[in-house]
Amino acid sequence: MTDLASAPVAGPALAGWAQATGTSALQTMLSVGTRPGTISFALGLPAPELFPAAEYGRAAAAVLEEDPRALQYSPPSAALQAHVAALMAQRGVVVAPEEVFLTAGAQQGISLLARLLLEPGGDVLTETLCYTGFQQAVEPFTPHFITVPTDGESGIDVDAVEAVLAGGARPAFIYTVPDGNNPLALSMPTEKRLRLVEIARRYGVPIVEDDPYGFLAYDGPPAQPLRALDRDWVFYVGSFSKVLAPALRLGWIIVPRELVPLLAIAKEASDINTATLSQRAAARYMDGGHLPAHLTAVRDEYRLRRDTMLAALEKHFPTGARWKKPAAGVFIWVELPEGTDASEVLRVAIEQEGVVFVPGNAFAADGSSTASNCMRLNFSHSTPDVIEEGIARLGRTLKAVGV
Amino acid sequence: MTDLASAPVAGPALAGWAQATGTSALQTMLSVGTRPGTISFALGLPAPELFPAAEYGRAAAAVLEEDPRALQYSPPSAALQAHVAALMAQRGVVVAPEEVFLTAGAQQGISLLARLLLEPGGDVLTETLCYTGFQQAVEPFTPHFITVPTDGESGIDVDAVEAVLAGGARPAFIYTVPDGNNPLALSMPTEKRLRLVEIARRYGVPIVEDDPYGFLAYDGPPAQPLRALDRDWVFYVGSFSKVLAPALRLGWIIVPRELVPLLAIAKEASDINTATLSQRAAARYMDGGHLPAHLTAVRDEYRLRRDTMLAALEKHFPTGARWKKPAAGVFIWVELPEGTDASEVLRVAIEQEGVVFVPGNAFAADGSSTASNCMRLNFSHSTPDVIEEGIARLGRTLKAVGV
Repeated sequence: MTDLASAPVAGPALAGWAQATGTSALQTMLSVGTRPGTISFALGLPAPELFPAAEYGRAAAAVLEEDPRALQYSPPSAALQAHVAALMAQRGVVVAPEEVFLTAGAQQGISLLARLLLEPGGDVLTETLCYTGFQQAVEPFTPHFITVPTDGESGIDVDAVEAVLAGGARPAFIYTVPDGNNPLALSMPTEKRLRLVEIARRYGVPIVEDDPYGFLAYDGPPAQPLRALDRDWVFYVGSFSKVLAPALRLGWIIVPRELVPLLAIAKEASDINTATLSQRAAARYMDGGHLPAHLTAVRDEYRLRRDTMLAALEKHFPTGARWKKPAAGVFIWVELPEGTDASEVLRVAIEQEGVVFVPGNAFAADGSSTASNCMRLNFSHSTPDVIEEGIARLGRTLKAVGV
Repeated sequence: MTDLASAPVAGPALAGWAQATGTSALQTMLSVGTRPGTISFALGLPAPELFPAAEYGRAAAAVLEEDPRALQYSPPSAALQAHVAALMAQRGVVVAPEEVFLTAGAQQGISLLARLLLEPGGDVLTETLCYTGFQQAVEPFTPHFITVPTDGESGIDVDAVEAVLAGGARPAFIYTVPDGNNPLALSMPTEKRLRLVEIARRYGVPIVEDDPYGFLAYDGPPAQPLRALDRDWVFYVGSFSKVLAPALRLGWIIVPRELVPLLAIAKEASDINTATLSQRAAARYMDGGHLPAHLTAVRDEYRLRRDTMLAALEKHFPTGARWKKPAAGVFIWVELPEGTDASEVLRVAIEQEGVVFVPGNAFAADGSSTASNCMRLNFSHSTPDVIEEGIARLGRTLKAVGV
């Protein structure tokens, strides 16, 4: 007879989200992108050939030589905070350096803000289609997603946001990506920004403004970020991953000053400290005045890649497919004719042509099949010749599946 | 007349933990430690003068020169995973390199395991006195702490653990630091390790083994980690912060292989990716064979600092105070006579002598005044002469408050 309490069990009990998570079809498909000869338009990777590896290496070496405490835990680098404040000022956001809360990238920024604002089981408001990393960041709080539609031209449906709040809902926050929206590649017009911020203020619901792409605008300066329009109700998340390089693991949050100590506690709980060496080396790199020319070079190259992809789409895609020219960011969003199954297109594209992308419904915050006829294509990571070749392959794939 | 729904509100609603968090008295006191002339025994900082800054800088430069993708997002470095597997083998833990899950330090490791195992509002089992960073890591899940006493000699009370589980409790996991325990500076004897692991296995409750100090044992090799005794029910967390340097932000988790994909999802949600450059540079540093001599040098210096602090305690502390010689880690735990208020000692020590430490009750997982007569003293961060001076100051402080 075995005591029930001491009967062997199969394995440890896991948190609910972990029990519910199967093998990620997306992850599986993406791993295909690393096969030799495969062209990947799937991930939002920056172009490694543009990384300022030599200058950054020199900056890191100088910082290490000067002070071994660059390898120690440390308070935030005041020099880096000042550089971020100066960058934000270029976008119309006036902020004191000590208000810049440094993070290990934008994803951590979102994750910490979720921790600060979201109660387990609470509500968040977002667009029907939204960045999967945001959905992952809030997942441990098992939130309820209140979704509003997205206008294909200008982004989040502000009337719908107002209707939801007027109806009494008080989500922990509204999540949006106003510039170079991921996945929709839209940028929100100024009048919509003004209205969204006014609604947030009126109903007392903060906006989490996720802005990894605001410094990557290709056709003149972008509109001001939401944070430039309201300092109390807009919580801004920025990143050096696309501006400099992902492996620095550097981003920032701008929140009302009184919330900074709470973010510091949440940060300490997550990973103690943002890497001191990265902070100091990035600041040193910017001290050297390298960033403006670097950003110009990145924008020029990404504009070329975007335009190459747009031209290739015109040439190789069927007439029923639609897309817009993105003003910022690293993606183009393509709508295939209604009824087309982009997941099936992907399957064939992998098997017959060796090319990958992300099907639209992967971004459905409500788990629906919304946008199952859409594809998100990244243009920042592939060189122009590879883009031309990859889009030609996708064109052949669409022909093969009868689109 | 103002519509209620649109009445202005004071500020955003925060998650429960954030509403409950006041100004941290501990943080406030610790900031005092940075005043010029103040001696700090408060934080568990490694000695910056021992960091291998030059070798690490050369390793980072070589990696950057070789491949700019060292600044890109990337899968885990297989070379670093292999180095960690080799380190673990020295401790009797046999693990395949691909089972080593790399993290941005041990704190992230704990945080990810909490996410994997702990349901919001769930139970965790730990000692009455435990690492505050653990308490912070689980805080967003608003867990219930089941606490068991700690034996002053050998750590966690295994009989109490068994009684709790036999009584029907099934916490998400048992948290413990078997080597150089923080804050108690104990190392768990082998027979206790065997029993704890047997209990975990029998009741199907995993152990999270937090081991930042296992490679810092000063009097011969430490006992094998719990993970060496069971591969299914012990989830091991390791760190390079004390072995190499905190600013690498590198640590690792060893879990049953089938859980690795779930940890990968939790990691991606938290901060996408552990810094590629850090991973590759640390691997390159270890490729160069520098680690064994470095570890020997660190152990030798920390042993000297420990022994210096022990001798100074003998010399300057009153006869009613008690402490043990720690076999590993970076702390000495001092019990002052019953009824002494260590927080008051700290206040006077700051004001009159310029020296800081952490009072024992800061570690009480149940928020009680347990150990309010105790002090945790760090010996790794101060040079021997500073240790001698700081303990003399504390001795004068104790005399001043009448201990």
